[in-house]
Amino acid sequence: MRAAAYVGDGTIRVEEREPVDPAPGQVRLDVAYVGICGTDLHIKHGAMDARVTLPAVIGHEMSGTVAALGEGVTAWSPGDRVTVMPLRWCGDCAACRAGHRHVCERLVFVGIDAPGALQQSWTVEQDLVVRLPEGLPLDQAALAEPLAVAVHDVRRSGLGADGRALVVGGGPIGLLIALVAASEGIDVLVSEPNAFRRAIASQLGVGAIDPIAGDVASAVDEWTDGAGVDVAFEVSGSAPGLATATHSLRVRGRLVVVAIHSQPVPLDLFRVFWRELELAGARVYERTDFERAVELLATGAIPTAPLISAVVPLEQTADAFAALEGGGDVVKVLVDCREGRAR
Amino acid sequence: MRAAAYVGDGTIRVEEREPVDPAPGQVRLDVAYVGICGTDLHIKHGAMDARVTLPAVIGHEMSGTVAALGEGVTAWSPGDRVTVMPLRWCGDCAACRAGHRHVCERLVFVGIDAPGALQQSWTVEQDLVVRLPEGLPLDQAALAEPLAVAVHDVRRSGLGADGRALVVGGGPIGLLIALVAASEGIDVLVSEPNAFRRAIASQLGVGAIDPIAGDVASAVDEWTDGAGVDVAFEVSGSAPGLATATHSLRVRGRLVVVAIHSQPVPLDLFRVFWRELELAGARVYERTDFERAVELLATGAIPTAPLISAVVPLEQTADAFAALEGGGDVVKVLVDCREGRAR
Repeated sequence: MRAAAYVGDGTIRVEEREPVDPAPGQVRLDVAYVGICGTDLHIKHGAMDARVTLPAVIGHEMSGTVAALGEGVTAWSPGDRVTVMPLRWCGDCAACRAGHRHVCERLVFVGIDAPGALQQSWTVEQDLVVRLPEGLPLDQAALAEPLAVAVHDVRRSGLGADGRALVVGGGPIGLLIALVAASEGIDVLVSEPNAFRRAIASQLGVGAIDPIAGDVASAVDEWTDGAGVDVAFEVSGSAPGLATATHSLRVRGRLVVVAIHSQPVPLDLFRVFWRELELAGARVYERTDFERAVELLATGAIPTAPLISAVVPLEQTADAFAALEGGGDVVKVLVDCREGRAR
Repeated sequence: MRAAAYVGDGTIRVEEREPVDPAPGQVRLDVAYVGICGTDLHIKHGAMDARVTLPAVIGHEMSGTVAALGEGVTAWSPGDRVTVMPLRWCGDCAACRAGHRHVCERLVFVGIDAPGALQQSWTVEQDLVVRLPEGLPLDQAALAEPLAVAVHDVRRSGLGADGRALVVGGGPIGLLIALVAASEGIDVLVSEPNAFRRAIASQLGVGAIDPIAGDVASAVDEWTDGAGVDVAFEVSGSAPGLATATHSLRVRGRLVVVAIHSQPVPLDLFRVFWRELELAGARVYERTDFERAVELLATGAIPTAPLISAVVPLEQTADAFAALEGGGDVVKVLVDCREGRAR
């Protein structure tokens, strides 16, 4: 079978590999589609070389079908259409014991810390497999993982219907957060400098503003009669984005920290004090978020078509990375791993 | 009557003034004791010249007795022993309408934005007056205001009995937070570089560690079996203090921002994300916090004697400021305003 591996030096190489037989409790999946994520780009750029083992088959957003069962697996049958929630926790650390297994102190993120989905055949623990409803196309189903992130982020915001939220950063996660929030009756505005992404937001029925050309603070003031939004999602990973989020919030508003800021960032702590703001970190998802994501896709509550900018065959995985690296007019790029297999 | 006024140029001058007759709805108080707060020092140092009107009688931590009633005041009688909650809100802004009047967008902090308590006779709105229980000495009662801050901070932490909290900064507010938390069954450790303040903490039955000589992270690890504390209170106003607080928290732990950071401070937002931490600003108090503070003083749940380092007469108010500016071996200094009046 074919597999795309990060081999170091900024290089993705597609190579021949032997499928891994499922051990007891594992299943082997025929992979259909794999989405490329910002983390995958970081890995390719060498930023996570200390964490991955080369050559590394990465990828953690996927859909596929069950191909073979390991000993003792009874919950699945060959042909079942599935996705994977790529988290393995220890069950024993302080975080797990407190019920927060998704942020386990020894969390294994499958696709980073263990082999991922960018291959035709992928073998994983049966507990990670999530069933897909009938009728949900496999390309759309590959968005379940990033959508689960968005579901978790909106849940961490604590915001209910009739609230107002600003999403700072309109990449794939920011747009999915906006869509999840909107599906719950929350009024949403996205701040995003890239015109293509703003156009996608509009296509999805979500308002978007350019923070470079426009004044987000004034727009928020006008929108909220000067009060500020209930929740701001920081998805930009930038210091100006953090400042925009902090300054858009109403008294006692809540800022959800979604983006990865690899260095300490200046925060206006005086404003946090003065307006009694809250900040809350939000990382990955819990099983309930993942299942909710699949449900949202299946019911059509989240329109995915405008988000999938391109689908490339596995042999051209490097092109998928290049399209995203260009920073240009793409949202989500999928890799089609079905080549050479009966469809 | 005599009044201590900030007259600019770092100077406090005691001068003769006419008592203000209470207007309808107001009461005139004979002031007994006034505590000097960090904010009063800031004012004296000129840091709030844009906000105060010179010459400014400041002071907002006090105790006293009712002396005269304005028209229509029926809830109070001359001789009633009282303190004052020095906040006036507009009732009409977005914060007030949302029920958060204590952080009203047009909040008047009496003692900063309006004349304060550092005078023998003080006239205030009757709604700000809070009754003192029988038997609570007036010197102790002057701690009600800073204690209300601490009650509010602990309430904002959301922490219940059996939790663990680190208090970063062992000044008056930090020590009061530690005492309130301890009174609720929370296990507390204070991080404070000043040896005198650590000694006061010990005298109060609260553990204290020197962050310069000792390793707070290791102490917290040992204390919590490596998990981290449930809550950290940032009361130091320093960037290293913020870092200590951030790094002491367990997964999903909560950092309460109590101190004023006048400039943006670098925050380890990656850790906030990774461990799904929360930050929450906490400013002043609500009426319920103030009444709870008076109750805690009256029942003796909060031992105040070790906190009152000195009591100076009103004529020597400048000495009270000097003692605090020395940064030396003092916690709270009270000004006795009763001089020249029958006691």
